[in-house]
Amino acid sequence: MHRISKEHEHKILNENSRIAERLRAHFAEHGILCLNIISAPGAGKTTLLERTLEALPRETRVAVITADIQTDNDALRLARFGFPVKHITTGGACHLEAPMIERALEDLDHDDLDLLLIENVGNLVCPASYDLGEAAKIVVLSCAEGDDKPLKYPAIFFKAELLVLTKTDLLPYVQFDIDAAERNAHRQRKGLEVVRVSAISGAGIAPWLQWLERKRHAVRVEAAVD
Amino acid sequence: MHRISKEHEHKILNENSRIAERLRAHFAEHGILCLNIISAPGAGKTTLLERTLEALPRETRVAVITADIQTDNDALRLARFGFPVKHITTGGACHLEAPMIERALEDLDHDDLDLLLIENVGNLVCPASYDLGEAAKIVVLSCAEGDDKPLKYPAIFFKAELLVLTKTDLLPYVQFDIDAAERNAHRQRKGLEVVRVSAISGAGIAPWLQWLERKRHAVRVEAAVD
Repeated sequence: MHRISKEHEHKILNENSRIAERLRAHFAEHGILCLNIISAPGAGKTTLLERTLEALPRETRVAVITADIQTDNDALRLARFGFPVKHITTGGACHLEAPMIERALEDLDHDDLDLLLIENVGNLVCPASYDLGEAAKIVVLSCAEGDDKPLKYPAIFFKAELLVLTKTDLLPYVQFDIDAAERNAHRQRKGLEVVRVSAISGAGIAPWLQWLERKRHAVRVEAAVD
Repeated sequence: MHRISKEHEHKILNENSRIAERLRAHFAEHGILCLNIISAPGAGKTTLLERTLEALPRETRVAVITADIQTDNDALRLARFGFPVKHITTGGACHLEAPMIERALEDLDHDDLDLLLIENVGNLVCPASYDLGEAAKIVVLSCAEGDDKPLKYPAIFFKAELLVLTKTDLLPYVQFDIDAAERNAHRQRKGLEVVRVSAISGAGIAPWLQWLERKRHAVRVEAAVD
């Protein structure tokens, strides 16, 4: 986080929270499950979304928002599945903020959605501070990174509802204790759900899709009750 | 980068630059080569430094500054080589700033050094904006990440003098075109030097140490001339 005065930081975060709450109310009202996916660069967010979109039935009312400092590579990769993808090039910004999501939604036929997947900028630090109106944050950690990352970058592991451990196919070739990684994540948030995924072998994709379906169902039920 | 006013951002960066220039003058005067090592979380900065410290002669006048948001794990890993290591826990901050280096130096017998290695916070975005008075920035990219990262995170590849491509031992198991990664890096900075390293097999460690020695020699010569 940039070293700005506490007062100034509060002002930015307050404004962000106000817009995030407006988005959250909108999503809840329309039965849209919004997920904010956060990881370091190269942890495999886009590949996870590729496996997700290709597994979803064509009639699924899903849209994706991707973000990068430069390039729309991720959006191009995801657009080929035929679902609407909106890309945000943040320029210098190291994270997404709620007003960017609000603007991006103007270009998406979002009232007709029931799932909105947001792929944040590749950064394990700053995106954790910015509420985007999501129902849940998902943190993605690659087995090629390091099993002590939940201790070093506590905020996102504390705030996430789900940890997706990716690239498990690399486990034989890296010094990564996957059980230790889970234990370290649970030190930040007891009860954090975990799925272990390999986008290459397909292992773990089914439990991930089940988690997604469970959350979608919960949001739909809630919207119907209200 | 946090969305702060341009004016406020300039003020912070100006103050940082002023202190960084003071540090740079100090390093130059004392013939100290200061290097600022930047990468995403888990790219292998600490492991590269482990291989470096174990290869350096005991009489080398080297010190290390490590940084993390939480934990001093990296410092503990590096301290066992017997050289002075100073750790900075940044709290919420996603990058190092020059005043933090100035304060850390008070705890190091730095006038007696000829090499100061700074391991920045694991973040491919924000640290690129903050001059620490270093002679050169080094960007570390792991082959487990993605060969398009230099296009997505251009600033650090534009500003670095050396790209260290790590974890080359994983190349058979990942979809990473190492030549494309180099080409993408050279699109940001023509002439950027590159070494390809595997800390596991030891491949590439010798060219890395040669680069380091060449830079150290240049700084010593310059200090002697002045």
